[in-house]
Amino acid sequence: MELSELATGAGSTILLVVIDGLGGFADADDASELEEARTPNLDRLAAEGSTGLLEPVGAGITPGSGPGHLALFGYDPLEFRLGRGALSAAGLGVTLEPGDVAARGNLSTLDDRGVVLDRRAGRIGEAEAARVVEKLRREVRVDGVDVRFHHERGHRILVVFHGEGLDPAVSDTDPQTTGEPPREPRAATPSASRTAEVVARTMAEVRRVLADEPAANGLLLRGFDSHRELPSFRDRTGMRAAAVAVYPMYRGIARLLGFEVLGDPLDLGDQAELLEKHRGDADFVFVHHKDADAAGEDGDRGAKVAAIERVDAAIPDLVAAAEPGVVAVTGDHATPSQLAAHSWHPVPVLVHGAKVGRDDADRFGERWCRTGALGLRPSRELLPILMAGAGRLAKFGA
Amino acid sequence: MELSELATGAGSTILLVVIDGLGGFADADDASELEEARTPNLDRLAAEGSTGLLEPVGAGITPGSGPGHLALFGYDPLEFRLGRGALSAAGLGVTLEPGDVAARGNLSTLDDRGVVLDRRAGRIGEAEAARVVEKLRREVRVDGVDVRFHHERGHRILVVFHGEGLDPAVSDTDPQTTGEPPREPRAATPSASRTAEVVARTMAEVRRVLADEPAANGLLLRGFDSHRELPSFRDRTGMRAAAVAVYPMYRGIARLLGFEVLGDPLDLGDQAELLEKHRGDADFVFVHHKDADAAGEDGDRGAKVAAIERVDAAIPDLVAAAEPGVVAVTGDHATPSQLAAHSWHPVPVLVHGAKVGRDDADRFGERWCRTGALGLRPSRELLPILMAGAGRLAKFGA
Repeated sequence: MELSELATGAGSTILLVVIDGLGGFADADDASELEEARTPNLDRLAAEGSTGLLEPVGAGITPGSGPGHLALFGYDPLEFRLGRGALSAAGLGVTLEPGDVAARGNLSTLDDRGVVLDRRAGRIGEAEAARVVEKLRREVRVDGVDVRFHHERGHRILVVFHGEGLDPAVSDTDPQTTGEPPREPRAATPSASRTAEVVARTMAEVRRVLADEPAANGLLLRGFDSHRELPSFRDRTGMRAAAVAVYPMYRGIARLLGFEVLGDPLDLGDQAELLEKHRGDADFVFVHHKDADAAGEDGDRGAKVAAIERVDAAIPDLVAAAEPGVVAVTGDHATPSQLAAHSWHPVPVLVHGAKVGRDDADRFGERWCRTGALGLRPSRELLPILMAGAGRLAKFGA
Repeated sequence: MELSELATGAGSTILLVVIDGLGGFADADDASELEEARTPNLDRLAAEGSTGLLEPVGAGITPGSGPGHLALFGYDPLEFRLGRGALSAAGLGVTLEPGDVAARGNLSTLDDRGVVLDRRAGRIGEAEAARVVEKLRREVRVDGVDVRFHHERGHRILVVFHGEGLDPAVSDTDPQTTGEPPREPRAATPSASRTAEVVARTMAEVRRVLADEPAANGLLLRGFDSHRELPSFRDRTGMRAAAVAVYPMYRGIARLLGFEVLGDPLDLGDQAELLEKHRGDADFVFVHHKDADAAGEDGDRGAKVAAIERVDAAIPDLVAAAEPGVVAVTGDHATPSQLAAHSWHPVPVLVHGAKVGRDDADRFGERWCRTGALGLRPSRELLPILMAGAGRLAKFGA
């Protein structure tokens, strides 16, 4: 059954706050980051509402940002697949044309032997990165294909290959670790062999152009993807949706689903202001916060705890600005600082609203959510629960 | 895998007590109705047995009575769909012929402008309602179709349209609220357009015939449906099943699945007597109790608590009468009195039997069931658990 069969198109507003990489785990030494964080505002919502744990894709499956978010928006991430390139393009407002292949790129630092020293070029500054991208744009030339470089933010860039006969079935050149050279791009299918060659020639050309750069002398590519249509969120749910996100990729995901992307916020304060300014314009409002994930990926436990506490401090303003009937707070996946990477661990969730009910959890965190009223369930089941709490789903059957 | 592949056709008797609308939720002010109710007998079964929570159809989905019960009998409610008309017909023992279209009807009160004042005609009495239905039967005439009126109980009636070329794809005329006029019946498919016209003419004719009635001067129709075959419970499970239900619709569901419907009980006392009289005749006995749902739908918290306590008081007699190997108590869906309607919230369940095992829950209610041994699972998974507990399922695989 499709949710659209039951969606009434009326009801209260839903506010979904996604703390990227929220989930973690306790071990012999420590509680999870969320368990440790002082979060009086989230604790209050948890105490008054219902809690549980969400599994984004499946048991033991570590999700990327795309599937993690698609699941929270009610799309089965195994049915609807998205490459990071297509996400980044949408986030930057770059329209992929049919036939284009896009990839996510990291400006990075390589040593003399071509081994990756830093996957993020020393967290290169905005102006410096923009200068490097401009240099690539001016000087990189590859026969038979038009290679377009777009600066996203910091070390992150988007590369779009425009030409005839391209195929996105090419493996990542990003080794996802330091101490190794970039990988050779390989074609997963025969029809992608020319594209793999084009990517290899582009990589060589980039090395030549950036040879003298002190920090950003390398480029790592991942998530090759082409243009793809997704069924719109509005058609599936009857809700007008809006996104308030600092980072382009998350706006991109939202834009691919037909969300309106609001403003160009730089922090949680801006995000609350945008919510207030656009109050009532959308039925479903998605607020994205990145820092917890970035800190988790750095293996920086303290920074992840601090990022969660910053979101907690902003919660009253976000809620006051949106005036929602239902508030939900969760993550798109876990990023435990012990692993310094995304992981498969279930992600805590809280849902607060007059019709939702409350359980015995009086704090927000893995150990309290485990016995919550929402149970342990796939992330894609969150959206119908939010819609039910907002009075947006009709009864099924007589 | 079909359950029938493993069903042995032998084992102990299963008693399933369905407290209609049992589930609820705690909020800032109150515990759930079941948590509040004094239920020493249910608590003892919970303490000695296993508990959990059941989700009838899916996350966030509010079930009607049909899907709620089908799920408890092991039928996936998304695969097997039933209209209320067909359910009511089966409950009344009215055989729908192929081509007939049936709808559930409410005698109701309209004001001078045709706006619904009371969807239940002031909870009209039995004799009065029977008189009105007899009047409809005698006086309503619609060209080209034979309209048959059957009194169900109170304000509830069944209307069967018998004729050529009828199609049940017609929208409800019941607005499900007061303060609005009945809706125009609309055809969802072109093939139902004649049926929609027939229904509209019937509605006009009913208005004419009932114009002078003080309370029941209107009729609201919903759940248009036609004859449909369901695979029998016995074929699927190897069990002879019996139903002991006061309300016709629940007998109807049972009859559609091939249950034997026992007697014509008026209350829990009659139901216990019937169980005793027919002890050993069935392998699976379904006892249905309606009052908790009716009270929940009225938003009457106290009445729902009292209804649950009445079932609790009857539990020793029901168990003694049936002498089952396995007892289960649950609901077909939640009907929280805070919402005065069915809802999507998971429903507590307890299962008691020598092979079932016990968990730490020592009371019966949402908050204790949340950490029970059965977990949170789809309602359709209850039946195999009951069959296993009754020794009725063979090992799967060598």
